[in-house]
Amino acid sequence: MNAPHVGLLPAGARDAITDVAGVTVGHATLANGPVQTGVTVVHPHAGDPFREKVPAGVAVINGFGKSVGLVQVDELGVLETPIALTNTFSVGTVATAQIRRAVAANPEIGRAWPSVNPLVFECNDGFLNDMQAFAVAESHYAEACAAASPVFAQGAVGAGRGMSCFEMKGGIGSSSRVVATAGRTCTVGALVLSNFGKLAQMTIAGRRVGAALAARLPSDAGTPERGSIILLLATDAPLDARQLRRLAKRAGAGLARTGSVYGHGSGDIALAFSTAYTVPHDAAVPAQTPPLLPDATLDPLFQAAADAIEQAILHALFAAETVTGRDGHVRHGFTQQAPDWTALEAAP
Amino acid sequence: MNAPHVGLLPAGARDAITDVAGVTVGHATLANGPVQTGVTVVHPHAGDPFREKVPAGVAVINGFGKSVGLVQVDELGVLETPIALTNTFSVGTVATAQIRRAVAANPEIGRAWPSVNPLVFECNDGFLNDMQAFAVAESHYAEACAAASPVFAQGAVGAGRGMSCFEMKGGIGSSSRVVATAGRTCTVGALVLSNFGKLAQMTIAGRRVGAALAARLPSDAGTPERGSIILLLATDAPLDARQLRRLAKRAGAGLARTGSVYGHGSGDIALAFSTAYTVPHDAAVPAQTPPLLPDATLDPLFQAAADAIEQAILHALFAAETVTGRDGHVRHGFTQQAPDWTALEAAP
Amino acid sequence: MNAPHVGLLPAGARDAITDVAGVTVGHATLANGPVQTGVTVVHPHAGDPFREKVPAGVAVINGFGKSVGLVQVDELGVLETPIALTNTFSVGTVATAQIRRAVAANPEIGRAWPSVNPLVFECNDGFLNDMQAFAVAESHYAEACAAASPVFAQGAVGAGRGMSCFEMKGGIGSSSRVVATAGRTCTVGALVLSNFGKLAQMTIAGRRVGAALAARLPSDAGTPERGSIILLLATDAPLDARQLRRLAKRAGAGLARTGSVYGHGSGDIALAFSTAYTVPHDAAVPAQTPPLLPDATLDPLFQAAADAIEQAILHALFAAETVTGRDGHVRHGFTQQAPDWTALEAAP
Amino acid sequence: MNAPHVGLLPAGARDAITDVAGVTVGHATLANGPVQTGVTVVHPHAGDPFREKVPAGVAVINGFGKSVGLVQVDELGVLETPIALTNTFSVGTVATAQIRRAVAANPEIGRAWPSVNPLVFECNDGFLNDMQAFAVAESHYAEACAAASPVFAQGAVGAGRGMSCFEMKGGIGSSSRVVATAGRTCTVGALVLSNFGKLAQMTIAGRRVGAALAARLPSDAGTPERGSIILLLATDAPLDARQLRRLAKRAGAGLARTGSVYGHGSGDIALAFSTAYTVPHDAAVPAQTPPLLPDATLDPLFQAAADAIEQAILHALFAAETVTGRDGHVRHGFTQQAPDWTALEAAP
Repeated sequence: MNAPHVGLLPAGARDAITDVAGVTVGHATLANGPVQTGVTVVHPHAGDPFREKVPAGVAVINGFGKSVGLVQVDELGVLETPIALTNTFSVGTVATAQIRRAVAANPEIGRAWPSVNPLVFECNDGFLNDMQAFAVAESHYAEACAAASPVFAQGAVGAGRGMSCFEMKGGIGSSSRVVATAGRTCTVGALVLSNFGKLAQMTIAGRRVGAALAARLPSDAGTPERGSIILLLATDAPLDARQLRRLAKRAGAGLARTGSVYGHGSGDIALAFSTAYTVPHDAAVPAQTPPLLPDATLDPLFQAAADAIEQAILHALFAAETVTGRDGHVRHGFTQQAPDWTALEAAP
Repeated sequence: MNAPHVGLLPAGARDAITDVAGVTVGHATLANGPVQTGVTVVHPHAGDPFREKVPAGVAVINGFGKSVGLVQVDELGVLETPIALTNTFSVGTVATAQIRRAVAANPEIGRAWPSVNPLVFECNDGFLNDMQAFAVAESHYAEACAAASPVFAQGAVGAGRGMSCFEMKGGIGSSSRVVATAGRTCTVGALVLSNFGKLAQMTIAGRRVGAALAARLPSDAGTPERGSIILLLATDAPLDARQLRRLAKRAGAGLARTGSVYGHGSGDIALAFSTAYTVPHDAAVPAQTPPLLPDATLDPLFQAAADAIEQAILHALFAAETVTGRDGHVRHGFTQQAPDWTALEAAP
Repeated sequence: MNAPHVGLLPAGARDAITDVAGVTVGHATLANGPVQTGVTVVHPHAGDPFREKVPAGVAVINGFGKSVGLVQVDELGVLETPIALTNTFSVGTVATAQIRRAVAANPEIGRAWPSVNPLVFECNDGFLNDMQAFAVAESHYAEACAAASPVFAQGAVGAGRGMSCFEMKGGIGSSSRVVATAGRTCTVGALVLSNFGKLAQMTIAGRRVGAALAARLPSDAGTPERGSIILLLATDAPLDARQLRRLAKRAGAGLARTGSVYGHGSGDIALAFSTAYTVPHDAAVPAQTPPLLPDATLDPLFQAAADAIEQAILHALFAAETVTGRDGHVRHGFTQQAPDWTALEAAP
Repeated sequence: MNAPHVGLLPAGARDAITDVAGVTVGHATLANGPVQTGVTVVHPHAGDPFREKVPAGVAVINGFGKSVGLVQVDELGVLETPIALTNTFSVGTVATAQIRRAVAANPEIGRAWPSVNPLVFECNDGFLNDMQAFAVAESHYAEACAAASPVFAQGAVGAGRGMSCFEMKGGIGSSSRVVATAGRTCTVGALVLSNFGKLAQMTIAGRRVGAALAARLPSDAGTPERGSIILLLATDAPLDARQLRRLAKRAGAGLARTGSVYGHGSGDIALAFSTAYTVPHDAAVPAQTPPLLPDATLDPLFQAAADAIEQAILHALFAAETVTGRDGHVRHGFTQQAPDWTALEAAP
């Protein structure tokens, strides 16, 4: 059963973040007994992300998280590497891999040039994955980069392999929305690493079905949420860093619609970037910034961002299949447990 | 028709912010032809708010707003005056009234003591109200203070008199939720000044009925949102300023459930305060701070905050009656226009 | 005796904020017995600040302050009114005056258009001025606007009339620095409302002369600092709001050189704006943004900002003459008390 | 020649961060041809930092930096690991080492418990050190932990081995100040990893000697600053996270006094922690928080923080000996190049 389309806006051709032209996604998936984890990489464009930086903004919705690179993105408003996603214990390894890859392409990094800012997001997949095995190696980052493509799998793949959502199987989800504003057509794409929520909170297209499911299924209701969600937004609209931070904040609206209250233990972090222009690393090369959209024309993009995030979370939930991990822990695929969610009674 | 109860948590006795013991609310309402506006005041306790400051935290969800006092609340984590709500053009007058009232009670303010930090929130009621008349006087602040009571009206009253919500009549709404955590029972109360949203976005208890309504009613669909919402949370849980800022952030989750995407032109600002203890103005008087709740026990409060905000918005919408204001502008009461919202078709 | 020139950079022709072309400053000064206060207004350009908004960024160095308008500047990155300075109790009145003036020029504000964001900074002049007299009227804002000129007085004038600095007379100070970067010549101007500091902290051009002075003069050493400083920066360099926030932060470096440790009771707030382009209010009018300076070329501007702020504080201190205010309180002009500061012994 | 004592406050017995009881520091130094780098670790107390967390606050003065762990410190206001310092490229490795060490002490981390937040600060030592060699291994973190002691070396040791300051040799510096406030005696300790500044900016105890030195020595005046400084503050005063963030901000005042204008390329990041109490990891164990200092009593601590930071930077500069690193690059020890700095002419 497919996830319902949410909201009134149309999706792009793939209903994925790669509907934003130039964006590609790749996974490296580790699925071997107690090791259920991986790496996912999102590339803003096909060029060198260090030489041609894309503008970006961050919104920390709940800061119980260990992602790296956000301080510099907030200060300078640009990305310098692809965006990497992985499990909490593997952030250091993947950050090192990002540095090494940037150095390989730009041997002056760390010497005549300033250093590069690795950007790695994480969620805690410790329920299914033996994080203490530190199974992710630098080579998995390279593998995920090599797999970059406009077409990519969703659900229990890449960094999403071991993630949980509403006490069911979570993982990678993506979507897109197309809107008209300021006399042009813009695409907003979303990709989430979805690992949050208690079962009783689950809300699908506004229907609060979690309580009905929790009454039928075994639930960890007594334990606190220990999840997180990473919320990425891409757009081809010409926005600057300040505007992209505003866009990133709207990810929180889409997340809330699915039942999240930004739980204490959930690192909920959003980042938005634009592909409309790049900022050259070399300060002597003038930036070719196109006219930016006026702030007063952003509402359609804000609507698209919230809708796309909600949709991407549903895509992750509906795509993820049952995974058995460490110590016999199991997370069931939602469509396997609740094949007809529309038949579930909704709480008020 | 009454607003549905949302969420799984029980409300307090009044289902209002005044279920948090000690909190009172008063209105001054101006309703005279083109003048449709007012002042609402929320008192954290019955004592002197300057001498006995309550801890508080702020979350700016969208900063297109003119509220005053937030910089100091963010730095010092306490309130020094009651919380005043009014229209955008009257902020200065009400702030001056707050200073004068604080000076009257504490004649040393501005002399031997440091000055007092007025706290005034606002929304733009210019669709119904002739803001250029500057009709709110300092005396209206005093009138609203004098009216403070645990029992108070909701809807098109006080600062809510001229507000719009989803292109219908908005205004003041309130609610509460009761939760158990950390071995105690806590109340979270909410009060909103609700003035946001396009009709097509309206979502009631998860049902996206706005599109169906927009198809039946005249709508300003072509004009951008020019609203705002002020989101106040009170709790008797012992939290410090950092924790209260975390609580305030969850107001954004409740707001999103009603269809908001934090529109560009909407000043969406949340503030949470605790009544569990006070911070004395005199630094020589030791604070009697009770043990704070551990952060790991906050999730029930976060759920209560999101639920209470959603509920308060619905209360405002269902309570507000039709108001005709300047230049013949009319905002219809939702229950008068849509007497049976449950019969409306929900969009996905 | 004149203030020493600090730093290695040259000043502009006036060594004042008005060396940034188009910027003008005007005062309204109230000096009548116990009333020693006023209003100062800084205009970024000669046009309508609402229709032609200038980009701006804010840095809250210490948030013990009651300035209004900062939330929206932080969100949208533009100014909509001139920048007004006054005493703490008069912020509401001046904000109302700003709204009224904007409405007079743009009658649709608060009706078809969104409302305007008044921007008023304040310091507490209660030592000399009877703030409880609420002597500043809306007309004083108009008077200060009418007085706008590239040439303006410094010291105990306008909003600076009643201010104190290092327990001596403070007030308005201004300066400028000229730098070359990115192949162009840029001017950075500063204007401060200087009302901070204990005598023992006073540092002039690196010489820590405060202790020597405190040993010779009566000092309030036992009382805490209750001051504040407002730090304004203007530049003709093409910077966006994010970059201007970075520039504003450097005001804190210049402030620290004079001996400030950003005292608890001192509201230390900086704002930087650029005159290099304007953002039209009408979203249908495309912005004509020039190419921005690359961040990697900002260091000369950062140096200029810190130097200009230090210089402006010294200008305020050296320009201010002795003022006697309420209850016989006196603040002595520094050059009257310490005619040859270079002869004072410097502490380490 | 020793660094001059700056400011009017007395130092503690060691004039080092370890004057705050319980704090220890250890280094691992790598000095081998082109490898000139290392790891420094600061322990807030002798216990398990994960089980007994100390309150902390962060101030990002300039965010051009790659430190990790700050997002969670900002959200939750506690440290969970010792504070590690290293070079930019080694952050990932040291963060992984921190996780592994925390897991070894608490095997449930990443399983039943939430994961641990590694905290690693960095500066770029690429001028002297071959960062591309990735010479720092996880074992060096363990080595630095094992070396923890109240007595520790300063200058070109540990993470400071390869750092530069004002184009001379920088590195590790530390200091302390003792103040009385709120009826008690408190110690504020500082430790910096000093790697910032152009020679012409150098200011020692207020004397702007950089220009005179730059005229006599070869200088990189034409190249931009590519440094950074990490500014750590410890105190035994009972402060909460909000107050510690306020304390951390004052590090910027001390930094500015040495000539810094928070250069674009300099990641200037401050963190302050208190040893006065701990927050237990187990939420079921009530925190034993002592009465906090009122904010109105913080000024002596703010003065101490600024003074201690200035002093620590001077200690680093005066302690560091000449180091030759990769490609024959040399940074000279300041006391070797300028044996009598008091004889240098000061610029205004």
